[in-house]
Amino acid sequence: MSRIPVAVLAATGAVGQRFVQLLENHPWFEIVAVTGSPRTIGKKYSESESWLLSTDIPESVRDLEVLPSTPEKVNTPLVFSALPASEAKEIEPIFAEAGTAVCTNAGAFRRDPHTPILLPEVNPEHIALIHAQRTAHNREGFIVTNPNCTSTGMTIALKALQNAFGVKRVFAASMQAISGAGYPGVPSLDILGNVIPYIGGEEEKVTWEPRKMLGKVENGKLEMADIGFSFHANRVPVIDGHTLVMTVELADSPVNFDLVADALSGYQSPAVSRTLPSAPQPPIRVRTESDRPQPRLDIADGMTTVVGRIRPDDLFDLRMVVVSHNTIRGAAGGSIYNAELLVEQGFVSR
Amino acid sequence: MSRIPVAVLAATGAVGQRFVQLLENHPWFEIVAVTGSPRTIGKKYSESESWLLSTDIPESVRDLEVLPSTPEKVNTPLVFSALPASEAKEIEPIFAEAGTAVCTNAGAFRRDPHTPILLPEVNPEHIALIHAQRTAHNREGFIVTNPNCTSTGMTIALKALQNAFGVKRVFAASMQAISGAGYPGVPSLDILGNVIPYIGGEEEKVTWEPRKMLGKVENGKLEMADIGFSFHANRVPVIDGHTLVMTVELADSPVNFDLVADALSGYQSPAVSRTLPSAPQPPIRVRTESDRPQPRLDIADGMTTVVGRIRPDDLFDLRMVVVSHNTIRGAAGGSIYNAELLVEQGFVSR
Amino acid sequence: MSRIPVAVLAATGAVGQRFVQLLENHPWFEIVAVTGSPRTIGKKYSESESWLLSTDIPESVRDLEVLPSTPEKVNTPLVFSALPASEAKEIEPIFAEAGTAVCTNAGAFRRDPHTPILLPEVNPEHIALIHAQRTAHNREGFIVTNPNCTSTGMTIALKALQNAFGVKRVFAASMQAISGAGYPGVPSLDILGNVIPYIGGEEEKVTWEPRKMLGKVENGKLEMADIGFSFHANRVPVIDGHTLVMTVELADSPVNFDLVADALSGYQSPAVSRTLPSAPQPPIRVRTESDRPQPRLDIADGMTTVVGRIRPDDLFDLRMVVVSHNTIRGAAGGSIYNAELLVEQGFVSR
Amino acid sequence: MSRIPVAVLAATGAVGQRFVQLLENHPWFEIVAVTGSPRTIGKKYSESESWLLSTDIPESVRDLEVLPSTPEKVNTPLVFSALPASEAKEIEPIFAEAGTAVCTNAGAFRRDPHTPILLPEVNPEHIALIHAQRTAHNREGFIVTNPNCTSTGMTIALKALQNAFGVKRVFAASMQAISGAGYPGVPSLDILGNVIPYIGGEEEKVTWEPRKMLGKVENGKLEMADIGFSFHANRVPVIDGHTLVMTVELADSPVNFDLVADALSGYQSPAVSRTLPSAPQPPIRVRTESDRPQPRLDIADGMTTVVGRIRPDDLFDLRMVVVSHNTIRGAAGGSIYNAELLVEQGFVSR
Repeated sequence: MSRIPVAVLAATGAVGQRFVQLLENHPWFEIVAVTGSPRTIGKKYSESESWLLSTDIPESVRDLEVLPSTPEKVNTPLVFSALPASEAKEIEPIFAEAGTAVCTNAGAFRRDPHTPILLPEVNPEHIALIHAQRTAHNREGFIVTNPNCTSTGMTIALKALQNAFGVKRVFAASMQAISGAGYPGVPSLDILGNVIPYIGGEEEKVTWEPRKMLGKVENGKLEMADIGFSFHANRVPVIDGHTLVMTVELADSPVNFDLVADALSGYQSPAVSRTLPSAPQPPIRVRTESDRPQPRLDIADGMTTVVGRIRPDDLFDLRMVVVSHNTIRGAAGGSIYNAELLVEQGFVSR
Repeated sequence: MSRIPVAVLAATGAVGQRFVQLLENHPWFEIVAVTGSPRTIGKKYSESESWLLSTDIPESVRDLEVLPSTPEKVNTPLVFSALPASEAKEIEPIFAEAGTAVCTNAGAFRRDPHTPILLPEVNPEHIALIHAQRTAHNREGFIVTNPNCTSTGMTIALKALQNAFGVKRVFAASMQAISGAGYPGVPSLDILGNVIPYIGGEEEKVTWEPRKMLGKVENGKLEMADIGFSFHANRVPVIDGHTLVMTVELADSPVNFDLVADALSGYQSPAVSRTLPSAPQPPIRVRTESDRPQPRLDIADGMTTVVGRIRPDDLFDLRMVVVSHNTIRGAAGGSIYNAELLVEQGFVSR
Repeated sequence: MSRIPVAVLAATGAVGQRFVQLLENHPWFEIVAVTGSPRTIGKKYSESESWLLSTDIPESVRDLEVLPSTPEKVNTPLVFSALPASEAKEIEPIFAEAGTAVCTNAGAFRRDPHTPILLPEVNPEHIALIHAQRTAHNREGFIVTNPNCTSTGMTIALKALQNAFGVKRVFAASMQAISGAGYPGVPSLDILGNVIPYIGGEEEKVTWEPRKMLGKVENGKLEMADIGFSFHANRVPVIDGHTLVMTVELADSPVNFDLVADALSGYQSPAVSRTLPSAPQPPIRVRTESDRPQPRLDIADGMTTVVGRIRPDDLFDLRMVVVSHNTIRGAAGGSIYNAELLVEQGFVSR
Repeated sequence: MSRIPVAVLAATGAVGQRFVQLLENHPWFEIVAVTGSPRTIGKKYSESESWLLSTDIPESVRDLEVLPSTPEKVNTPLVFSALPASEAKEIEPIFAEAGTAVCTNAGAFRRDPHTPILLPEVNPEHIALIHAQRTAHNREGFIVTNPNCTSTGMTIALKALQNAFGVKRVFAASMQAISGAGYPGVPSLDILGNVIPYIGGEEEKVTWEPRKMLGKVENGKLEMADIGFSFHANRVPVIDGHTLVMTVELADSPVNFDLVADALSGYQSPAVSRTLPSAPQPPIRVRTESDRPQPRLDIADGMTTVVGRIRPDDLFDLRMVVVSHNTIRGAAGGSIYNAELLVEQGFVSR
């Protein structure tokens, strides 16, 4: 089959560049258009902004002209959006009105009751919300979001525990990479040799989004999961890879603690998501070394959620560490995986 | 008055160097002897090991000969010990047998029921355990420890909350500086641009020591405080300064959340500790900026415990961030503060 | 005597904050006014920008209102300027026209033939250019600059060699701290775990300014020193402290190589500069350890130029390493030292 | 054809792990034995030391038993040596005596007149020294070394200039990655946020080895190239990738400065090396952005030497920046490339 033409909105920023990098040689999608801010419109993509990744700009994209983010200029059945939230709020609905499928990394519509936050490993059935979204807005196009980069690893790990034992309460603290703040993002004077125990808006997102994704969709309605969170967001001097330490209270304590690691390492994505091109297999990898996972060593494959230090806890049931690639699994790669699910489920035609 | 002659055991290591730095110009103590490992014995202090601090080696210590750690060679009424735990276990009792007061940073005797873990801001009355220690071991000399560097800031902050509201349960995660591992300590290949979610033995110490320090001593017996802990220890690429994020369940929830910050900022050390030379005044400083405290910016004075981001929590009562200087307040400076308390209370004669 | 009232222009930026920090408790100067960008005008200084230093904002400055940078609002006999070069070019002459002595860290007028680039350790006699400047511009006020932060340490070390042996050619490479780029300055994604072998405009400055400072002023005219340079500017992940490696060809090779270290360690500032409040004494410190100086360990006193690894060279005469504090000796501290010289020489009245 | 069985000596260390990583799936070589220190002998490779790379231990090596480094236990026609220099000096000749071809990263024999330091891009004809080596030692086996990691990039770039214009004198300063010091290597307390302007022995190696490699071999005799060096070695907080800034004096100045970039980008390896499996093609990549090359962004392919900032110089002819992967091109990858050349030239039989 020929590849589906796609566009990347805000392709010149940090997340946009990841989309461009990951879509090179994608078996199903082919970038035919890129958009950028007014300052970059009209330039060649390769000359629009400094490229931040250690691989080269894909040849097929180098010479594309940077376009404005409007459906008049960008006429593809599917767009990936790396727009900042404020712009996403205005621009993404325009594309949806024009009939486009929008897979977005932006958070603008995550709290919308008709917009799914999708993790194919976790809640592919939430894709059903698209029908409600189409009805509510009387449009054919639609918006599908992926979660915040920190919510991503957390939710995938919790899903495995939820399936096996049920999850009641979660304490968590993150140590998040600087790439999560985009570019130019965090000034080096702020973070070199330092910890910043604050990321604006992050704690609200990370304690809300997992409840939506772990909730149930029935008859086009979503019921949030009843899980309590206490969360601390921190920035640390790491390039890529968010680390989460978590203490979890289960609904049903495992009769044997080894079952916890088994539940995580044996977790299987729902069948519909398992064989998509971007599907990590298995979705969760459990490391057994005492000092792993670590962001610099354990995110090489980009899409796998890595869990380690699974151990009993005195207050709740268990403690563990979760590491996940924040700009691949937690951003661009997640959106692409979602788009593959949309194609598989017939929401985007090949 | 003339100054009390003191020795520093294992003065050539990272913590030993901090002792030497902090005791320069101390109003009560004067270093007259330093000890080191077999490899350094007989050398001039200034030529024994590379000096790791950004201030110069104090003139008064430069030319001291490095001695073996034995009371025959080191004959002072008070010694500060920066010995590694395994050596401390053997050597410190020998000094106590010889009648010496030992203020140690080592963890070897922290779990001994007759050895106090002292924080002058928190539990100066635990000094009474010395009487029991003397009786139990039939010796005049004694050992007094300061807590683990991470336990230090945690316990000082919890004490303020315990006094005001009682403390029931604590979830905490640390982001600890590399200087906490001594020298050569953490290889740069392990920690540059990385997080190591594991520090050997740390979680056991940090969930046990605060319960001892926050407990009660009556009739020479110690009753541990009944507080539950869930703790995650992490190493991050920071030079000095441990950061703790904590979620705390109080016995009596404050009627007004502002009372929490008031309890911390208004906390006063017990009167006996308040005016000692090393006493931070106030012991706890509360910062109100949204992104503070940070280790690189908030440990400049060395002895103050800095607390910030005090905010309500959905699961327990409150969340906060605690930053403390790990090699000053949490190690050498803490031992010196303890020694001042011993002098003030007559356990070491001027 | 009472202190001279001074203002700091652009006091809210990274260098401006250093001025504010260093002038607290200065024996001769007292900050009575601070200026800032339009966005901060009218705010209290303590609420205008986030404070980047690990010491607190001085009490005496906290509540000053941020003013616009005009002589109408700022009426002090002396101002310190931390303005960016483009603004300095317009604003500093206005202050000079109004009769103000301007000690600036900006580079706008460094190439002006009537404006001295002053290092009190090196060329206090260049202060005589002020007379020519007053005549040329028919104004009583004047502008005095300090050199670029990298030129500073380089020139001080070269001056000691010039006096002893003459200097002909210099090869140098810098490894410069991120604080040299101001705030927000270098994005962390660019520099964490990386080297950027380029700093815009730096190579031109660092190969020109030393020739001016090491030149002669006679009859109000400056003759540049005849020294050749090959220079490479690099940014590295260091907070404060620029490191320079230099290979130097001397006019007269020393008969004994030890004389090189002697010339550096024995160098004395001209008498007129030697006892000023900010004068480092001695101006150059020579370290003899094989691996020093290092920026993290050797800039603690802020004003001293630290030299080490003095060794023979196969192509030229000698190699050495120079470390200097870029925002103290190389910026705010240097300007203050210059102002002290101006007071001492009667260019600013007490 | 079937693959040639090879062994990796000291396979458990930092460079040894790179050999293991790079040889996975090598078209010509297959690891059948690994050796290690006494402490690791007898263990499974995967359990012998902590694995430092972000890719997994190759399946085919995981279960190999760690052997002692003796030809009795390791019986392959070719061994790769990651031994430390002191051990290499004793062990490598034993293998050569036993008839083995030894491709070593160790520096023990680099100054031996009969042992070539080989860079296939530069001096494949030096392989002829093997004949002299066999004669001198009366043995069939032999030792071939690759240069020091810093010499590597420097020499490849100089070779291109030497061919085009001749090279007379070179000033250089390095900013070297921590992985160059092995594991545990540089303590994090020494290098985080710092520069260490010293690497033991490095300056001697880097000013000698290029002269050998750029010299001529005739009749089994080597004549060193007549090039003068002034070099400064520095360690910086970078994980992988050495950066060199260089100022070069040419024998024949180019008539047009553009020819310098052309000479570098157009450089071709000698024909015999050009199509080997590890050959970078082209060997040198020239970047034209003002701020490249950078180690974190430009070493992704491992074997290419990246040059940038080519610009005229006031003292000599040109300045440039060279970045090269120190543990791949400058260590294990270089040895493997040498081994490929040995096979191609018939010194190791397929």
